[in-house]
Amino acid sequence: MKLVKNYAGRIVPTEINGETQIPFKGIDKYKPEGKIYGPPIRSSADFPKDGNKVTAGLKEALKRAGIKDGMTISTHHHLRNGDILTNFLFDTISSMGIKNIRWFPSASFPCHEHLIKYLKDGTIHHIEGSMNGPLGRFTSEGKMRGIGVLRSHGGRYQSIQDGEVHIDIAVIAAPSADPFGNANGVDGKSACGGLGFALADSEYADKVIIVTDNLVQFPCVPWQIQGNNVDYVVEIDSLGDPSKIVSGTTEVTKSPDRLLIAEYVAQFLEDSGIMKNGFSFQAGAGGTNLAFALFLKERMKKSGIKARFIRGGSTKYLVEMLQEGLTDYILDGQTFDLDGVNSMRNNPKHVNTTPFTSYNFHGKGNFASIVDAAVLGATEVDLNFNANVVSHSDGYLLHGIGGWQNCLFSKCTIIALPSFRDRIPVILDEVTTLCGPGELVDVIITERGIAINPNRKDLIDALKKSSLPIKSLKEIQREVLEICGGAPTKPKLDRNQIVAVVKWVDGTVIDSLFKVIG
Amino acid sequence: MKLVKNYAGRIVPTEINGETQIPFKGIDKYKPEGKIYGPPIRSSADFPKDGNKVTAGLKEALKRAGIKDGMTISTHHHLRNGDILTNFLFDTISSMGIKNIRWFPSASFPCHEHLIKYLKDGTIHHIEGSMNGPLGRFTSEGKMRGIGVLRSHGGRYQSIQDGEVHIDIAVIAAPSADPFGNANGVDGKSACGGLGFALADSEYADKVIIVTDNLVQFPCVPWQIQGNNVDYVVEIDSLGDPSKIVSGTTEVTKSPDRLLIAEYVAQFLEDSGIMKNGFSFQAGAGGTNLAFALFLKERMKKSGIKARFIRGGSTKYLVEMLQEGLTDYILDGQTFDLDGVNSMRNNPKHVNTTPFTSYNFHGKGNFASIVDAAVLGATEVDLNFNANVVSHSDGYLLHGIGGWQNCLFSKCTIIALPSFRDRIPVILDEVTTLCGPGELVDVIITERGIAINPNRKDLIDALKKSSLPIKSLKEIQREVLEICGGAPTKPKLDRNQIVAVVKWVDGTVIDSLFKVIG
Repeated sequence: MKLVKNYAGRIVPTEINGETQIPFKGIDKYKPEGKIYGPPIRSSADFPKDGNKVTAGLKEALKRAGIKDGMTISTHHHLRNGDILTNFLFDTISSMGIKNIRWFPSASFPCHEHLIKYLKDGTIHHIEGSMNGPLGRFTSEGKMRGIGVLRSHGGRYQSIQDGEVHIDIAVIAAPSADPFGNANGVDGKSACGGLGFALADSEYADKVIIVTDNLVQFPCVPWQIQGNNVDYVVEIDSLGDPSKIVSGTTEVTKSPDRLLIAEYVAQFLEDSGIMKNGFSFQAGAGGTNLAFALFLKERMKKSGIKARFIRGGSTKYLVEMLQEGLTDYILDGQTFDLDGVNSMRNNPKHVNTTPFTSYNFHGKGNFASIVDAAVLGATEVDLNFNANVVSHSDGYLLHGIGGWQNCLFSKCTIIALPSFRDRIPVILDEVTTLCGPGELVDVIITERGIAINPNRKDLIDALKKSSLPIKSLKEIQREVLEICGGAPTKPKLDRNQIVAVVKWVDGTVIDSLFKVIG
Repeated sequence: MKLVKNYAGRIVPTEINGETQIPFKGIDKYKPEGKIYGPPIRSSADFPKDGNKVTAGLKEALKRAGIKDGMTISTHHHLRNGDILTNFLFDTISSMGIKNIRWFPSASFPCHEHLIKYLKDGTIHHIEGSMNGPLGRFTSEGKMRGIGVLRSHGGRYQSIQDGEVHIDIAVIAAPSADPFGNANGVDGKSACGGLGFALADSEYADKVIIVTDNLVQFPCVPWQIQGNNVDYVVEIDSLGDPSKIVSGTTEVTKSPDRLLIAEYVAQFLEDSGIMKNGFSFQAGAGGTNLAFALFLKERMKKSGIKARFIRGGSTKYLVEMLQEGLTDYILDGQTFDLDGVNSMRNNPKHVNTTPFTSYNFHGKGNFASIVDAAVLGATEVDLNFNANVVSHSDGYLLHGIGGWQNCLFSKCTIIALPSFRDRIPVILDEVTTLCGPGELVDVIITERGIAINPNRKDLIDALKKSSLPIKSLKEIQREVLEICGGAPTKPKLDRNQIVAVVKWVDGTVIDSLFKVIG
């Protein structure tokens, strides 16, 4: 494996799992060539005229889809930690004696620890998708046969569309589906909200299997997944554990430090002038983010300001803002709680988005760059405003990228994070893993101060009269290092053994993760 | 040009406008090979970060799209006879000195007579799409430079998807759009309902220009056309004449013969047992079809029967059935009146469909074959149940195919037509132009009797006790010939000069239209 230094100065391989790679060339620098992948042309003559594609069981559907060793099989993560279908899928694949599958999920969750045995016995060769928690640890210890590939939600769409990843069989969990294969996520006992993360899979995979625990008469409306792309429909008893698919309630942080950060973020949006009529912002479902949305809401109400749209992951807090007329729309990629699901089902202004509309970098633009402000987390940042979202300073891969990289393109990207965690400082001289280049990070907000990227003179000027504690990153770092007693110990890594790579939104390789030693 | 006899015994060319053609091989017999067309991969780096694609005028947008001689330019027909954009488009193209354009509309209307001068002066080389009225006459007289190609709505999607027709520039009229290019047809002064006929164009054209007379702030929701596929947005004063885009009211036929036909169709659906709980049917916007829907509605109410879905073209009559709970859904390809538009805008059970979901034969099935009964018109039928929908017995090309061929795949296809028009019999020994093979036509209903295709023994049995006047086609023909004084005169055609061809739903050539002599 040849290693090179990319534009960001990071060591990356020129080949991964036998496929040639392009090293990161800088923001907006890599220009793709070629054409979008076209799946084989099908004919209605080969599909049941009555539209009934129901097949007796997942095994039979996989057989008819022509499953064999070495194939790529994709799943989506809308069932989150309640997903039991994916585990059942690999139990089935294993029982068929199939080996060396490339598993291509849109994300993985702790519930997928079950799959470690299949990584061990060679049923799964490697994972391309987030390797959270146990799967990440397994990968970081150098135990996965192939090299993991981490992509953002947009990057996943891009890789499929561009033909970089060819999906042989997509297995799509559908909380509601009809026999033709039309499917949605807003109805049924396993309702999860949208199914947008499975869109690319349904469009570009050679074979598409819909698995549902709520088979309805044609037409299943809305048909976010269109039956015209589907080969087989399988009915099973249960896709997962509803209580883990969506939370009954999402909890706002109670930590005083995090509440302070949230309040700083809200004040920053007001003081900078970003919070004005018709503006837009992105807020996620983390405890700090929820608190930020609540603080911002109060400020908006006080000033009589209404947003044009809020970009979710949605929760009841965003739904309330929609209902109270504080925003025209929620543009939503996934719903985190029952209020989110119900709102998406019933309110046409709660719009179900997909990685194509929101994040795909290889389209004619996407709306991530239209959002006025995105508030994101990170595991680490460094003095150049670079940020890490996948690994910790001990070198372990523990999180996926999600839409994080894509959201960096917002007009004002704010990383909100506590300045240290478990007495480990998170402002480093250099991030352990580079996921987001500093030139896209505009503001870093911690409980001890707010640093504005020196490139953003407009923001620096706008905040001149603000009461917010604006500081340099270096100053904040100095304070934190004093409190924690110095920088975190450097991780012990085998720099000759790459266990995973991080792709940039354009499919180039921005950084590598190495085997953690002992 | 080499001519061959195809599977249906029709003379067709093996080459059209320099491109090799496949002669019709029989229903479900042609198996496509190869892959779906993939447009060039784009990068967000080449599009405005703020999402604002508004361009100063159509000419400027065409220039930036790289317009040049010989290109293919597509338009949609959702503005129907109120469309002024298409005429303005070709005025603009002509003013730029561009020649030999292949115009690829989803349909044309009498208002497009304006374009004859551009066919004459070579701005437009030929039309692929319906050539109704004046354009059809012009074509039939052998005056068009190239050979016209007629396709069904589904066939148009298929031809684009399969790369058979490569669109260089799609110009999409959008009654509502935002600066990013998201667009819909349900809002704005030129509201026309759906924009489904432009879907393929937006997905597969090299360059996509949205033209709107109602520019709204991002996001334009619903976004039936997605800005992620759009290159330029142009604002103009008016897309067309609203009163001709949708009718204020649609009129039920007053002709006693046609009312009788409509009543026969409704009774046929009841007597055959097709009208039962959960059934589905297609009804168009012709006067006879509207009457049929009203008669069927009465029968459904009397019997307490509810449909699962009605397939539109929608009108206020179908909207009322939805509102009265006589159907769960309207699956709608185009709205014909204001009630249709309002219902599509406001009622989530009035579902906006596209030629991809409803008609594309080169998908994994489509829903046309799921519909229990489709009631269609025709210009002619023959003793083998073959049907014609594009030409008259004088040989003139006067109508487009629309979704007609696609709907033939319904479980029970009924052609309802008067047995003669202007004293010209419409049941011939052989249709003038073959558009629909008889094996897909199950029933022909005229005011003088009903003929069931001998292949449909199930229907013949089911109707044994019906009071309907079931006859053979031969019998009905005999009666009509007596009244009209014989079969229509054979058209005078130059069989060496093909002016247009009719494609089957799979892209093969099913028949030719010849130059009409004097």
